[in-house]
Amino acid sequence: MPDFTDTLRPAGPGGPAILAKERDSSDVPVEQLAQHLFPSNDFLGRQERIVPILENNKLFDKSKQQNLSRPERYRLGLARAKQLRRYADQYNWEDEDLNVAQYLCDDVSPYMVHYSMFITTVREQGNEEQRSYWLPKIEAMEAIGCYAQTELGHGSNVRGIECQARWDPAKGEFELHSPTLTASKWWNGTMGRTANHAIVVAQLLVPKSAESKDYVNHGPHPFIVQIRDTQTHKPLPRIAVGDIGPKYGYAPMDNGYMLFDHFRIPHSAMLSRYSWVDPNTCTYSKPANPAVVYGSLTAVRASIIMHARLIMARAVTVAVRYTCVRRQFQDRDSNDKRAPEMSVLDYPTVQIRILPLLATMFALHYTGAAMQSLYENTRAQIDQGDFSKLAVLHAQSSGLKSLCTELAANSVETCRRALGGHGFGGGSGLIQLNNDYLSKPTVEGDNWMITQQTASYLIKRMSAAVAAKTEPQDEVEAACKEWLHQGHDKRSSPLQIFDSDEQLVEAFHRRSRYLTYQAYIEREVKNRSWNSLLIQLRKVSHAESQSILVTNFHKALQNPSSNLPPPLKAHLRKLFQLFTLYTLDSEARDFLKASAVSDEDLDRLPDRIQQLMAEIRPHAVNIVDAWKIPDFLLDSALGRYDGRVYEDLFNRAHRLNPLNKVTFNPYYTSDEIEMGGGDGELRRIVAKL
Amino acid sequence: MPDFTDTLRPAGPGGPAILAKERDSSDVPVEQLAQHLFPSNDFLGRQERIVPILENNKLFDKSKQQNLSRPERYRLGLARAKQLRRYADQYNWEDEDLNVAQYLCDDVSPYMVHYSMFITTVREQGNEEQRSYWLPKIEAMEAIGCYAQTELGHGSNVRGIECQARWDPAKGEFELHSPTLTASKWWNGTMGRTANHAIVVAQLLVPKSAESKDYVNHGPHPFIVQIRDTQTHKPLPRIAVGDIGPKYGYAPMDNGYMLFDHFRIPHSAMLSRYSWVDPNTCTYSKPANPAVVYGSLTAVRASIIMHARLIMARAVTVAVRYTCVRRQFQDRDSNDKRAPEMSVLDYPTVQIRILPLLATMFALHYTGAAMQSLYENTRAQIDQGDFSKLAVLHAQSSGLKSLCTELAANSVETCRRALGGHGFGGGSGLIQLNNDYLSKPTVEGDNWMITQQTASYLIKRMSAAVAAKTEPQDEVEAACKEWLHQGHDKRSSPLQIFDSDEQLVEAFHRRSRYLTYQAYIEREVKNRSWNSLLIQLRKVSHAESQSILVTNFHKALQNPSSNLPPPLKAHLRKLFQLFTLYTLDSEARDFLKASAVSDEDLDRLPDRIQQLMAEIRPHAVNIVDAWKIPDFLLDSALGRYDGRVYEDLFNRAHRLNPLNKVTFNPYYTSDEIEMGGGDGELRRIVAKL
Repeated sequence: MPDFTDTLRPAGPGGPAILAKERDSSDVPVEQLAQHLFPSNDFLGRQERIVPILENNKLFDKSKQQNLSRPERYRLGLARAKQLRRYADQYNWEDEDLNVAQYLCDDVSPYMVHYSMFITTVREQGNEEQRSYWLPKIEAMEAIGCYAQTELGHGSNVRGIECQARWDPAKGEFELHSPTLTASKWWNGTMGRTANHAIVVAQLLVPKSAESKDYVNHGPHPFIVQIRDTQTHKPLPRIAVGDIGPKYGYAPMDNGYMLFDHFRIPHSAMLSRYSWVDPNTCTYSKPANPAVVYGSLTAVRASIIMHARLIMARAVTVAVRYTCVRRQFQDRDSNDKRAPEMSVLDYPTVQIRILPLLATMFALHYTGAAMQSLYENTRAQIDQGDFSKLAVLHAQSSGLKSLCTELAANSVETCRRALGGHGFGGGSGLIQLNNDYLSKPTVEGDNWMITQQTASYLIKRMSAAVAAKTEPQDEVEAACKEWLHQGHDKRSSPLQIFDSDEQLVEAFHRRSRYLTYQAYIEREVKNRSWNSLLIQLRKVSHAESQSILVTNFHKALQNPSSNLPPPLKAHLRKLFQLFTLYTLDSEARDFLKASAVSDEDLDRLPDRIQQLMAEIRPHAVNIVDAWKIPDFLLDSALGRYDGRVYEDLFNRAHRLNPLNKVTFNPYYTSDEIEMGGGDGELRRIVAKL
Repeated sequence: MPDFTDTLRPAGPGGPAILAKERDSSDVPVEQLAQHLFPSNDFLGRQERIVPILENNKLFDKSKQQNLSRPERYRLGLARAKQLRRYADQYNWEDEDLNVAQYLCDDVSPYMVHYSMFITTVREQGNEEQRSYWLPKIEAMEAIGCYAQTELGHGSNVRGIECQARWDPAKGEFELHSPTLTASKWWNGTMGRTANHAIVVAQLLVPKSAESKDYVNHGPHPFIVQIRDTQTHKPLPRIAVGDIGPKYGYAPMDNGYMLFDHFRIPHSAMLSRYSWVDPNTCTYSKPANPAVVYGSLTAVRASIIMHARLIMARAVTVAVRYTCVRRQFQDRDSNDKRAPEMSVLDYPTVQIRILPLLATMFALHYTGAAMQSLYENTRAQIDQGDFSKLAVLHAQSSGLKSLCTELAANSVETCRRALGGHGFGGGSGLIQLNNDYLSKPTVEGDNWMITQQTASYLIKRMSAAVAAKTEPQDEVEAACKEWLHQGHDKRSSPLQIFDSDEQLVEAFHRRSRYLTYQAYIEREVKNRSWNSLLIQLRKVSHAESQSILVTNFHKALQNPSSNLPPPLKAHLRKLFQLFTLYTLDSEARDFLKASAVSDEDLDRLPDRIQQLMAEIRPHAVNIVDAWKIPDFLLDSALGRYDGRVYEDLFNRAHRLNPLNKVTFNPYYTSDEIEMGGGDGELRRIVAKL
């Protein structure tokens, strides 16, 4: 409906003019940087091809979806997942195209676990017969599957799960059973409403012999199980399965629960590539090498880090663009009372929240990429069961998963707060991003818990280095040896962090070795209990992870094959320094204790960081532009490419908000909710409670 | 519908047994502590009386409300607000009863701004005639009002708002006008759909004389304006007003936008207790003392801190109870393979996230209480315009608002992550808490920005102390003077933080003075620009705020009038030490630089903190119990008083989740969403997009 607001414009200078000026005044080559960041697998090309397809279908319009209820969001998510799959057929999409489409759509697809853990598990754990039976059904999506491992009572401690698969040699069947409420499968995505099959992880109980009543527990094993009727989609008898209800985020995903009441499944249900139960003798054969999952776990963690950097890129893109457009207060020291207000990004208190994150995106990028390429380069060895090259990387990947997902999760909220009031509004584009991503510090290994794995590995390597009996087993042990051999004198001379990037990187190594050595002393020499050291062990793990991030960032800039033009390289070097010095500053005392950095240099850090931020500030818009987050994905009034922030915010409120179509009755003496609507609506609301 | 899950129980030991044991093994006197925390105003009594009233009305049932859409949440919020107001009439509630009811209901009431800023502004800024005209209408809620100050383009910088109120002496009216889109009022609660009146803050433009065409801008002033028809509730002509749409939290609140198109209001609309425009001569009279709002701002900030502590108490109550009930992994060092799994709260990595927050609740409590009582004790002076006693407190309140709301906002997410996977679920009880509370770091003064006010005051007092010409104006200046007189020698001898609580408190004073002095040097001696110092100024403000929190905590325990029984006092002293040492540890290097603490003592901090946590751990359940957060408010399966965590989670999923009433069609070749429902539903969903 036209009204007097149609002709109003924001007070000048307008967002488009501001961003145009920002873009013109920076010499950061946006397209070159974009190519540098996304050199392979045609990521940008796929994105460019798929965005218009989604934009042309009203089903993928995000502008009003925040008004939907959670049950509606599942329905919408299912409708979108189906449409994407039809597009995949129609356009002959590769798997990677479908991934990019889901990423752009930004709905957690109800099919997600089908496409990922379900199919991967059948592929990796199924024997040849099982694979040839199941994979065609899975690919055609006749069998829609989920992965049911975590339970109400146990997540991190997989060995503690309670669901049982008991082999019955008489009937030649397994019996799946949930003996307690806490044995209920819980959290498993795609299971609540969507899947008709599941990989069920259960304790494998096998009689000692065909005649015995004594069972041996061989630990958790995967079974493939039909859980719903393929015609009616109702749960099969003796199965209780459903959706667990609303969550912090992930509205379109049907995370589920499932219990079994003596539910019988055939012998062929047990995925038997590595483990097997002889149906007649009850003999159990176990996998030759329990490390068979090593390789793919490393690949998964590399992809978690690559994903984390894109999460940060979204939040930082919004924050950088909006804080350029947003102006508030004149310079307090200015004598010109009519000077324009300052861009919010010109305040150091805004820079210190956003620009280190801008640098961190790159740090995560180079380490994720290094992990991916190391994994791919050694794939042949891995496939033959040789994990020697991957062992260190795998150990390090726990700590990196922990640190990187934490950095990304925190970055969204940090950016949101830096946006001021409008950051709390639906136009920020950060609400769903935050709500969804906050699952990541917990899933795929709780971030606090898994740092033990990294620390444990480091302590073992330090112990070996101290023993010094054999050649170092890997680069970590070699580094421990070198640190030990440097001796106190050499180590006590601090590094020149401002004069040399190499010494800056070395400072991180030295700190990590120092903390590892302290932990080694506590655990191995003083024999302190493991649990009493947990806080310290997390610190050890984070220090090592930071050291890896800094090292890979530095290496990437030195790598001659990346062909970085010198001006771009100079910009990236500033980002490297900002990330590194900012990280160093936040843990300054450790570096001092490790004799890695002098007290005087630590005192100089805040000024140096502020100076670097001032140098990076004019290029911030071009740098985020190079990450090529399309407006369709950002879905952000504040972060849109063209800077029309206020027009978009007003449009969302005045023209798109469904609540404004209704006139309410605000008077408390009346039970009426809508003006003139009577009290029927109140009854409808109460009925939903 | 009964099914086989009805008879299932969680694996033992059950939550009720675990919590009973926790409660039995602690000597913390829950009721005594509760009385100590809530000694006045019958807070606990009101809570006890009101909970059953709400529990008996289905309208206040929270168990399924997470499934509602945002427009439904507004409707529900409005229905609840009306019912509470009717209860107030019915039960003769005092204002404080209604506050407690709203707190328990946990909906941000669409009436909120009417009850607070609207009525307060009329009371404080209206002249006698205006008050006697408006207050009866407001109290009867015929006039339902909001407070329209913040605009699309300006929030923090109130002087920058664009809405104009131009005095037209010919017609004897003001003309309210929004010249741009950014002049739109924005964020103003209760305005979007509920209010029929508004306090509109606009730039007061008055002709130089009755005949002049030249206008003088006298800055922002408040006007009381009818905005909607009291019969139809439609906006009046020349007003565009509506709800701004979904936000991070605050779903039931109709934060609004509003624009005026040359909208005319009478002379009496300008609230004129302090400012006035002579309708004939156009003479403008301004308030005698612009500090008239000082006092109530301080009271507001004290209440923000008291509110923050209850937010933390909720999050920590959930976290403590659940991490006792939750068990995961056996002790890694144990030789007993059949030992029970450990309570998650027994891991130091869980303690370090939750227990310092448990201590922080108390720190906020004592400072909030101190501010409130100082304000009340000096009220007579304040009412007579004498702010001398309040001036320091007011300056300090900016920094305290910033620090305390940040601590509380972060605490919810910290607790949530400490809950592991279930923290991401709807049964945590922390989702709405987090989403709503995350507005607080921004509203009532952006947390980063307002630290400048505190720092600016501190630098002024340090400058005066350095000049040393007059008697100290207040306690801050006196403390600066003393710090200066101590001289380098005395200051360089570190304090004995482990031997004496007094010296521990003194360490915080010394650090704050040291940082203030450094900032003074940069600004006043080296003449550095204000903006270049902003990061440092925030640090100065936070150091001072921490010093205040530590001081008030310590004082409260020494206060003989609190009659603390010695065992309780001993427990509180441990919480004091934990809060203080934990805070000290997180900023260790500053304390070293300030010569407040020795390097050796800083090295000992982590072990001492871990030891304190081990001592507090057995009492954690009783301590949170004493905060008396009713289950009705917690609305948390994880945090419920009786510990029936898993039963409640399962009940919410299996019996209450509306999504489980529907069978879906998961096959992508079909457009059908519900099984057998045809493709009509897809069209209904798309129509909402």
